[in-house]
Amino acid sequence: MFEDAELGHTLSKEKFDKRITAVRNALLEVQYALKDSGGFSVIVLMTGVEGGGRSETANAVMSWLDPRHVEVNGLGDRSDEERERPRYWRFWRALPPRGKIGIFFGSWYNFPIMRSALGRKRQWGKLDRRISEINRFEQMLANERTLILKFWFHLSRKAVRKRQRELKKSRLTRWRVTARDRRFLKHYDAFREVAEHTLRETSQAHAPWLIVEGSDRRYREMFVAEEMLEALKARLATPEVRASLPATPTPSSSVDRKRTVLSALDLTKALAKDEYDEEIERAQGALAMLSRHRRFKDHSVVLVFEGNDAAGKGGTIRRVTGAFDSRIVRVVPIAAPTDEEKLHPYLWRFWRHLPRHNHIVIFDRSWYGRVLVERVEHFCSPVDWQRAYAEINDFEEEMTGHGIVLAKFWLATSKEEQLKRFKERERVSFKHYKITPEDWRNRKKWDAYAQAVCDMVARTSTKEAPWTLVEANDKYYARIKVLKTLRKRIEETLG
Amino acid sequence: MFEDAELGHTLSKEKFDKRITAVRNALLEVQYALKDSGGFSVIVLMTGVEGGGRSETANAVMSWLDPRHVEVNGLGDRSDEERERPRYWRFWRALPPRGKIGIFFGSWYNFPIMRSALGRKRQWGKLDRRISEINRFEQMLANERTLILKFWFHLSRKAVRKRQRELKKSRLTRWRVTARDRRFLKHYDAFREVAEHTLRETSQAHAPWLIVEGSDRRYREMFVAEEMLEALKARLATPEVRASLPATPTPSSSVDRKRTVLSALDLTKALAKDEYDEEIERAQGALAMLSRHRRFKDHSVVLVFEGNDAAGKGGTIRRVTGAFDSRIVRVVPIAAPTDEEKLHPYLWRFWRHLPRHNHIVIFDRSWYGRVLVERVEHFCSPVDWQRAYAEINDFEEEMTGHGIVLAKFWLATSKEEQLKRFKERERVSFKHYKITPEDWRNRKKWDAYAQAVCDMVARTSTKEAPWTLVEANDKYYARIKVLKTLRKRIEETLG
Repeated sequence: MFEDAELGHTLSKEKFDKRITAVRNALLEVQYALKDSGGFSVIVLMTGVEGGGRSETANAVMSWLDPRHVEVNGLGDRSDEERERPRYWRFWRALPPRGKIGIFFGSWYNFPIMRSALGRKRQWGKLDRRISEINRFEQMLANERTLILKFWFHLSRKAVRKRQRELKKSRLTRWRVTARDRRFLKHYDAFREVAEHTLRETSQAHAPWLIVEGSDRRYREMFVAEEMLEALKARLATPEVRASLPATPTPSSSVDRKRTVLSALDLTKALAKDEYDEEIERAQGALAMLSRHRRFKDHSVVLVFEGNDAAGKGGTIRRVTGAFDSRIVRVVPIAAPTDEEKLHPYLWRFWRHLPRHNHIVIFDRSWYGRVLVERVEHFCSPVDWQRAYAEINDFEEEMTGHGIVLAKFWLATSKEEQLKRFKERERVSFKHYKITPEDWRNRKKWDAYAQAVCDMVARTSTKEAPWTLVEANDKYYARIKVLKTLRKRIEETLG
Repeated sequence: MFEDAELGHTLSKEKFDKRITAVRNALLEVQYALKDSGGFSVIVLMTGVEGGGRSETANAVMSWLDPRHVEVNGLGDRSDEERERPRYWRFWRALPPRGKIGIFFGSWYNFPIMRSALGRKRQWGKLDRRISEINRFEQMLANERTLILKFWFHLSRKAVRKRQRELKKSRLTRWRVTARDRRFLKHYDAFREVAEHTLRETSQAHAPWLIVEGSDRRYREMFVAEEMLEALKARLATPEVRASLPATPTPSSSVDRKRTVLSALDLTKALAKDEYDEEIERAQGALAMLSRHRRFKDHSVVLVFEGNDAAGKGGTIRRVTGAFDSRIVRVVPIAAPTDEEKLHPYLWRFWRHLPRHNHIVIFDRSWYGRVLVERVEHFCSPVDWQRAYAEINDFEEEMTGHGIVLAKFWLATSKEEQLKRFKERERVSFKHYKITPEDWRNRKKWDAYAQAVCDMVARTSTKEAPWTLVEANDKYYARIKVLKTLRKRIEETLG
């Protein structure tokens, strides 16, 4: 794989000077076309062998482009705010909006490759799990209209050693050979092996690796400039490129349409007022105690509330917030995305609200909008909501893998109960704001929503992030079930 | 000042129960009215004596309101990302958008009061400087359509001691009396003195202090609920309240209109190509070295570029970015505000881009838009741009006080030179995108812009944040002047 990049490619000053002006002008032109179209975003990864000329090349690229529409992300050490969120949070945070270019140094490849190469054991299994995460992440980005270019700056072992020797010769450059560089040289073969495996497994049509020989400045700069230019031109010519989409529509989850996870719910479940009063005190007290648990400081909680209109989400959420100190809990109501959110991949507007340790975020409606309302109302294309299941599972795996307590609630009422509540809302003046013509319209699509809910549960209820279906015809019963479930989830995590 | 709050106010359970339902319903109603109008934001500060019941009251308030539209900000220890920005950054970051309520615990009062009360010397001078900053900050917030309510939870010395004694009696509550509480009791008198002074100096019509006696739960909850209710109702009835606005328009800065800071510029200044080539290499090299200086790690750099259309901002910015490693520099082009930005005070969209240590942010156009284009084109009212001078000075003082290197450049060309460049842009195809009908329209207002620039320089060029007027008829000369000025500014700061 690296053979071509060890041949000693060079580019003469004469040839470089002859071509570079045209390439630079063309690059600038496609950059403005990208900005004007705003049709996609561009991610340029620059990674590879230490001393392979990444930062020099990035500086050159930056000097050729209009720096107002490029962001270079160093992504060195994580800040404490980053350490308290799932691993990919810092990358999501740095994603360029559509119309812009983001150059990434530290990327999702650095840590898996370095750990595997420098660790005592190779741990191919762990590496492959990371690789498969990366592939899914990049596929999601591609589907969300991101052009991904991955440059690997390569140097042969000999070239690395030569470079380090030359730097050591002069007092002025000696400091540039760090302990890290020496360690890298020592593990060069392992690194090469791990890198080759990783690159092979992550080179895909929508996110190809481009291997650059790093020893000659002019060669590598021209290589990167021309590849960027070609890729941007091609993409501008056919803007609607998507990564491997499902060829056939997702089948619905139930053959037996009469018996579903929803129809199986016993909606007559109820709780008497006095029982409720006692139970809620106990449940809220237990949650309050848990939030003061020593180990809670190293965790955070994310709650998702979905449900039929008028199923009582608001009231239930208030009982949850009531259990905790108001300083550690925040409710995020999900409405239409803002214009900044629209310029980013779908899940961006949820990632940005993930809590720090010792904090709780409650989503009132959530990323499941894509496979519920957006599916049913045709706000997005079928392929978009069909791929969303897997993307959501990845998102949630990131959360639970980080130790976030994730609990998802679907509040289910019967169609009759909903009607009763709608009518009451219309009658009672101070509940009037709660009922809109849209609610009545949604109600007409009851069956389509039910099907969407069943598919959602079938595809996204996992061991680490299970759905809790809540019988919500009786508000007291529903609230207690939610609080108790949450308590159990937190206890399981705190151990 | 605290006399009324030491009388031992209580509210019987009977009275509380009788009133609370009506108050809660009314609160919810005004909250929805606020959300629907989106006309202003609400900040509720809860501060005061340790053990005065702030967090319990916040929890109660939170349980009465719809938690989806309130954010409670604990603001405990600063994160590293916060420590690397000016002091007010974390408060700006937490400001609620219009239509929402933000409850603040840790606020801009905590640190000044505690330091002054617990420090060895009172340092009234320092405290008064902080107080005057706070007053200007709150006045700005009020002018930017924020309703500010400040609750001070008070306990007499006797009540504090009694509370601590009682908590210590039981093993279950003993842990709640911390070292901090004991220290607080020891310094109670000093604290009271400092607090009284601070409250007196910061109680203003647009941001009044409300002193609550904290010993009785029902009393303080009802007090806060009713005050919030009244204030919200009153504001909803008269939404266009502004804090003390200038009664007379800002006079223009120059009596002698013929001789201004702009006309005094010698626009014939120029640099030959070979001199430029040599100078730029030297200047960029020096900047690159400075950015690797040991002390640079504890500083950051903010650059502002303003200037006539076609004055060469873009090209100059590229020469600045070219001097630094691309990983530490970011250019923020200022265009129309996004919808999230529109819901916050004017300066919010600039605060959010302030760099971490060891980073450089370049604003291509800036907060000065308010006193330039917004003034000339009447995009905001005269009072808005007139108050902006002082607000901008405060903003920049926050930056320089934090050790940020701030450099502001006005690139000035003559009217003739601009015409030449406009025509060239129209002629040369790849520069075509750079010229728009708007540029021609702006040109017609040349004199009005010139006046705005002179006023801006007169009012915002300060010792710590001076304007550099750059003779930009010759691009080479302009770029070198910018790079050299920047170098000098950084050297001065690094010492």
